[in-house]
Amino acid sequence: MPERTEIASLGEFGFIRRLTQTFSNKNSSTIKGVGDDAAVLSYDGKQTLVTTDLLLEGIHFDLIYTPLKHLGYKAAVVNFSDIYAMNGTPKQLTVSLGISKRFSVEDIDTLYEGLHLACEQYGVDLVGGDTSASVTGLLLSLTCIGEAEKESVVYRNMAKENDLICVSGDLGAAYMGLQLLEREKVVFAGNPEMQPDFSGKDYLLERQLKPEARKDIIELLREKQIIPTSMIDISDGLSSELLHLCTQSHTGCRIYEDRIPIDYQTAVMAEEFNMNLVTAALNGGEDYELLFTMPMSMHEVIDSLEGVTLIGYMTRAELGCRLITRDEQEFDLKAQGWSMEKAINELKNQ
Amino acid sequence: MPERTEIASLGEFGFIRRLTQTFSNKNSSTIKGVGDDAAVLSYDGKQTLVTTDLLLEGIHFDLIYTPLKHLGYKAAVVNFSDIYAMNGTPKQLTVSLGISKRFSVEDIDTLYEGLHLACEQYGVDLVGGDTSASVTGLLLSLTCIGEAEKESVVYRNMAKENDLICVSGDLGAAYMGLQLLEREKVVFAGNPEMQPDFSGKDYLLERQLKPEARKDIIELLREKQIIPTSMIDISDGLSSELLHLCTQSHTGCRIYEDRIPIDYQTAVMAEEFNMNLVTAALNGGEDYELLFTMPMSMHEVIDSLEGVTLIGYMTRAELGCRLITRDEQEFDLKAQGWSMEKAINELKNQ
Repeated sequence: MPERTEIASLGEFGFIRRLTQTFSNKNSSTIKGVGDDAAVLSYDGKQTLVTTDLLLEGIHFDLIYTPLKHLGYKAAVVNFSDIYAMNGTPKQLTVSLGISKRFSVEDIDTLYEGLHLACEQYGVDLVGGDTSASVTGLLLSLTCIGEAEKESVVYRNMAKENDLICVSGDLGAAYMGLQLLEREKVVFAGNPEMQPDFSGKDYLLERQLKPEARKDIIELLREKQIIPTSMIDISDGLSSELLHLCTQSHTGCRIYEDRIPIDYQTAVMAEEFNMNLVTAALNGGEDYELLFTMPMSMHEVIDSLEGVTLIGYMTRAELGCRLITRDEQEFDLKAQGWSMEKAINELKNQ
Repeated sequence: MPERTEIASLGEFGFIRRLTQTFSNKNSSTIKGVGDDAAVLSYDGKQTLVTTDLLLEGIHFDLIYTPLKHLGYKAAVVNFSDIYAMNGTPKQLTVSLGISKRFSVEDIDTLYEGLHLACEQYGVDLVGGDTSASVTGLLLSLTCIGEAEKESVVYRNMAKENDLICVSGDLGAAYMGLQLLEREKVVFAGNPEMQPDFSGKDYLLERQLKPEARKDIIELLREKQIIPTSMIDISDGLSSELLHLCTQSHTGCRIYEDRIPIDYQTAVMAEEFNMNLVTAALNGGEDYELLFTMPMSMHEVIDSLEGVTLIGYMTRAELGCRLITRDEQEFDLKAQGWSMEKAINELKNQ
């Protein structure tokens, strides 16, 4: 009997590491391969950035409450976000689709309306793709190509001890939006006459269904001539992403609970759901905000960056990755974000 | 009631055209978007080529007779072939996977062995991807990036009247390999004790399970300083691909039945299956040979190109696309290759 290891036992990153460790780069044009938000390629002067994402019905989206236009928009924006997280500019997009016969041409038109809107909004060209029948449901695979000046590409591994940790926008709202939609789905299943009441929760729904990539923050940084020492976009939750920066930069960190930016609607919703607000803000995914580090010397510049919050600083690796609560207790940060393992467990429990 | 058009009613290309027609290119770096084997991007000096492919279990491959290692190899090579078909060199590859819990880590290791082998063989770097759980079966989405000198990229739309039509290797063998595997699958289902007899058919199996991209032909052309006027790789059958060249170049064509290169094993197999050999060679997909055109003046050079066969020439568009048989009858070429419509019909018939 051949050995059999369950994929879930490795976790997503262990699994990817295992699969890719035997590959080594052979071309001088490959500056950076697996291991960051996008690959970096160099073809004279500018560097080319490439990122890719796979979205599967029943795993990444639920069409019961995700309009197809929103799905298209979000699928594109999520990829643009990865390019911005390298301090680059998204330029081209390829979109591949697997489509079951449940979908009509009009359905896919609607999906493409969303893709089109995103491409217009962010100045990106659709340059290719592949379309196929699928046995079950809808799937999208997107690849985005961007460019950046060689000197300004920002990786995950260049944060230093004492660097300041900054985050754009606010956190946890997309997760709360998802909880809200899931609740209404259950209510609707029980009583289809019931109309969902989303009043006062529009921000949460928008964050979940129509997220934006922080192009504005990247432009602001450029304007102020700031190049972060490390950067990542928050797709899997603040804790998980900050741990990536620390692991790859060989640092520890200290972040402060009372500094974590949270919107009023997120707080109200957490109370309504009887959920811990900070847990939601630390671990809720899909915010697509930017998490980045800057040298301590830039402390005053950060104050002038609208929409950017200073939440803590990097430390020596030996000091660990710590959250300091309002009452000055300390806890280890844990990655409890989205993971393949969780997705597989959800499948098992269906 | 909203209008509902069945996707199958548009055909694959009509469908893609419909979806992409509202997109216009906004960046000067986008030289060529949708509509060829790969997109062409320009970042100073060299041009960057991008191509993408989606492979779904139950649609594009059957794991009953496709070893996972071969699947990985083929998935990569098919993408490289698209880059060569632009007269470029594949350089980077991203691989996204959707995996159901039916698969173990070792299974995916095996798949990656095939990908790795292909990358080594063709000098390509794996630079990224995305991995996800899938509700049903295995799916792969690959994107390949290549480079080319600006002056030597070959498109589909530059063939001229009187250009000579050339094809590399031989045709129809991959299709016959598939027929053979499908037959043995049925036999095996009826009697699992029965061992398949593949003796004397190794070439057909290899063409189906472990195809190669024609890197050697591209190198040969380069060595002889030949830049074809148009080029495409044969993934959907000679007829279908030649019609693409003619449509995009606004030409007609005449090709000769007795010139179509066919291997001995393909011929034997066609007889065994009581199939029309020429139909198989014209319409059988997945050969991944190169189909290209050259000016009439290069007639003598073609004779010196080992592994390349002259099969006909381009004409004025009004003369149509014609096949001339051994007994000098003429027929219109028809695209009967792989199509989304066929795949969907197959699904309907399951």
